Amino acid sequence: MVLFENVRFLDTTLRDGEQTPGVALTCEEKLWIARKLDEMGVHIIEAGSAITSEGERNAIRGITAEGLDSEICSYCRIMKQDVDYALECDVDSIHLVAPVSDLHINVKLKKDRQAVREMSTSVIEYAKDHGLIVEFSGEDASRADFDFLKSLYQDGIDAGADRLCYCDTVGMLVPEKTEAIFSELSSECSVPVSIHCHDDFGLSVSNTIAALKAGAGEAHMTINGIGERAGNTSLEEVVMILEWLYDHRTGIKSEEIYKTSRLVSRLTGIPVAINKSLVGGNAFTHEAGIHVHGLLADTSTYEPLKPEVLGRERKIVLGKHAGKSSVTLALKELGLEVDDSQLNEILTRVKEIGDHGKHVTDSDLQTIADTVLNIYRESRVKLKDFTIVSGNQVMPTASVRITVDGEEVVEADIGDGPVDAVVKGIRKAVSGIGDVQLEEYHVDAITGGTDALVEVRVKLSKDGKMVSSRGARTDIITASVEAVINAINQLMN
Amino acid sequence: MVLFENVRFLDTTLRDGEQTPGVALTCEEKLWIARKLDEMGVHIIEAGSAITSEGERNAIRGITAEGLDSEICSYCRIMKQDVDYALECDVDSIHLVAPVSDLHINVKLKKDRQAVREMSTSVIEYAKDHGLIVEFSGEDASRADFDFLKSLYQDGIDAGADRLCYCDTVGMLVPEKTEAIFSELSSECSVPVSIHCHDDFGLSVSNTIAALKAGAGEAHMTINGIGERAGNTSLEEVVMILEWLYDHRTGIKSEEIYKTSRLVSRLTGIPVAINKSLVGGNAFTHEAGIHVHGLLADTSTYEPLKPEVLGRERKIVLGKHAGKSSVTLALKELGLEVDDSQLNEILTRVKEIGDHGKHVTDSDLQTIADTVLNIYRESRVKLKDFTIVSGNQVMPTASVRITVDGEEVVEADIGDGPVDAVVKGIRKAVSGIGDVQLEEYHVDAITGGTDALVEVRVKLSKDGKMVSSRGARTDIITASVEAVINAINQLMN
Repeated sequence: MVLFENVRFLDTTLRDGEQTPGVALTCEEKLWIARKLDEMGVHIIEAGSAITSEGERNAIRGITAEGLDSEICSYCRIMKQDVDYALECDVDSIHLVAPVSDLHINVKLKKDRQAVREMSTSVIEYAKDHGLIVEFSGEDASRADFDFLKSLYQDGIDAGADRLCYCDTVGMLVPEKTEAIFSELSSECSVPVSIHCHDDFGLSVSNTIAALKAGAGEAHMTINGIGERAGNTSLEEVVMILEWLYDHRTGIKSEEIYKTSRLVSRLTGIPVAINKSLVGGNAFTHEAGIHVHGLLADTSTYEPLKPEVLGRERKIVLGKHAGKSSVTLALKELGLEVDDSQLNEILTRVKEIGDHGKHVTDSDLQTIADTVLNIYRESRVKLKDFTIVSGNQVMPTASVRITVDGEEVVEADIGDGPVDAVVKGIRKAVSGIGDVQLEEYHVDAITGGTDALVEVRVKLSKDGKMVSSRGARTDIITASVEAVINAINQLMN
Repeated sequence: MVLFENVRFLDTTLRDGEQTPGVALTCEEKLWIARKLDEMGVHIIEAGSAITSEGERNAIRGITAEGLDSEICSYCRIMKQDVDYALECDVDSIHLVAPVSDLHINVKLKKDRQAVREMSTSVIEYAKDHGLIVEFSGEDASRADFDFLKSLYQDGIDAGADRLCYCDTVGMLVPEKTEAIFSELSSECSVPVSIHCHDDFGLSVSNTIAALKAGAGEAHMTINGIGERAGNTSLEEVVMILEWLYDHRTGIKSEEIYKTSRLVSRLTGIPVAINKSLVGGNAFTHEAGIHVHGLLADTSTYEPLKPEVLGRERKIVLGKHAGKSSVTLALKELGLEVDDSQLNEILTRVKEIGDHGKHVTDSDLQTIADTVLNIYRESRVKLKDFTIVSGNQVMPTASVRITVDGEEVVEADIGDGPVDAVVKGIRKAVSGIGDVQLEEYHVDAITGGTDALVEVRVKLSKDGKMVSSRGARTDIITASVEAVINAINQLMN
């Protein structure tokens, strides 16, 4: 047998993922995600649980109506009613879930093993009679009596189930146990068996790989590993492990992974950890000087694979660990060449900022380099001062005094809040030299206290030219003003 | 051999963790973390890399001067100079790292295998002569020639190394390969061998477990798995897997894990993913109605272990999946009893909010219940008005006028920015009825324009009681004020 032959992926972002507390996707958002999953090459999409609500059914119907290549599936309990609702949504298949541990059977379902057996076979037969593909799934299988589970699976097969699924509902499996279980199941069962893991101990990915190695025919996963509690198996990790560490072609378009991850994060509102493998913000970010030195010589020294494989880019940032090589690289990106003594002086100044726990941004580096290289870069627009007044009974108002090519201009404006007011005031003040549009305004999440560093990023455009800039201050308004003035100067140069 | 016998943990949060781009801890912050690690029972603390800077050495000296139970270690390259700096800091041991793959030897060090051999043995002998415990480590070992690595390890042992370490520098190991490698190393090497993993493919934890199962004597890990790129092995996961899935007592105080995780997150500024196992915000959060129903009957149905084990608490949140049982539980926590028709009405209103993608917070539920139950709850603190003045040449200043139990109080304060100023003003104004602490201030990323909706979440505490609240406005300052006043009223009830 070839390892991982015919392995298929079921993505359950729209069901398990959507059960994450606080997540509620609209029909349209679900459709966007489904289209993207289909484009990536996911074989089966669990689009939701049709019984839940009319809103949920509308979303599933929207997806089945799309005519995607992926098989579209609905979650069902072992109730005919659930199957009827799934049929109404015109799905290809159902993920039919029966509780199988005595704990779940007795405590949650308040029935016994025999009842589960009867309910399961009758619903499977009903679903097969109505033309559905049936994946028959054991909830809390990892805490079930294994002999009971296997005989229930056999009943399921006899009733017509096309596939089986083994759920590690509270994430207590370990890889060697998973491998042993799947060796047995895949040799004894005449239909493919899926693995469905949860990440309560952080082992969902390696358990999924272990199951696939032992003959599992299908893996259930979510984008970014989202889901209830600690979430489910991360699809992106399993795909890349099979592709890169086991040299198996999965059929998934890996260059779509990062975009899909961002889409799901944006629509669900669940941020991806900065240190998440493959899709986290830092996964291809390098700071420490010595590492960047190695990277400059050969990117494989400190990267297991190139970021382009996932459709993303490498990021070099400067901070207290910055070394000569990383500063040289960053200067090169700014188009600046320096000699050794200049480099040392720039490095010292970069480290000073880094020692205070701050990142050195591109524009910081530009300023430092300009000073050291004694380059005088004239800014056409300079801030003299600004003042804002705001409050709940006060109309947010800002005044700004800037110089444009040395001429002083004073303007004032009101806005939806003080930031809005001051940005409007600045745009008014520079209107004499061009019509500047604010295209994007973004503030990174602020965590810590009200005196935490706030990082503002803006995109401004003028006559089709677009530039971006950032400001970082403990005061959101000053950071915004800094970013906007900076961007205007880039536009004017 | 007993599985995991004498396994020890080296925590490298203060070295690998601190190399995370953007992280720079002060000496005091490093000491707080070291004390906490020691209190938890971590055997070895890698406190930093003494060669880096004077600031780094001050931090390490601060930790060694503390007289902790943990062994204190410094990272060193295979250079005598590095060892000298480590000696200056009075550490117990060094983690002496030599590049061992040809890629790292040729591209980064620009030397050959023989040079690495000579540099290593000479530095090991030097360090041993000066009384240090030496852990001799192979960087990029997983891509090294295994025979060269083993003979280099043997040279290290001959030169006096007390322990060895195998680094999977770019995280490309898989568990079965790790197990094979450590079976061989632990049978051939006369000293303990450590495992040091990176999480580039999400396998660091299972690789670490695999190594320990095959006889590794020590594991390198960080709190929350922080570190460069995708980070290092999560200490909390390895500890809990050994304790709960392999029934091995690690000696780590698991009830300190959550507090330690929060401390490291707060000081490094790296948020923990909401779906991170064990320490993530949602790890013990339950929303879906049906699951809460099971939980109410027996918490083990949907929890692999009780949150108290980690020193944390279960959270029940309400949203679109809310069912009767979860709403009943939440009302009970608020001390409210309702009849069936009241419960149905409350449930309908909760679902309405949930369908719009919003969480129903405790105070939302209180408001809904109050309306349904027709209870009138008087807020003790009411905002009359506030005014802020700020600017780049203006000290951020805020005045607030509130009523506390009907009495008008006017206060003013200055701050790091207008938000900081107004929050300080409010805290001052209510100081007569209690000392309110701002424990957490969080703003979700703002995207769109300067008139986009800003959502502020705050946690406030008073006398050990903690509440959270939120405000959502287009104006960040008004949203912050709203959230804070709301939380104060919850605290005062």
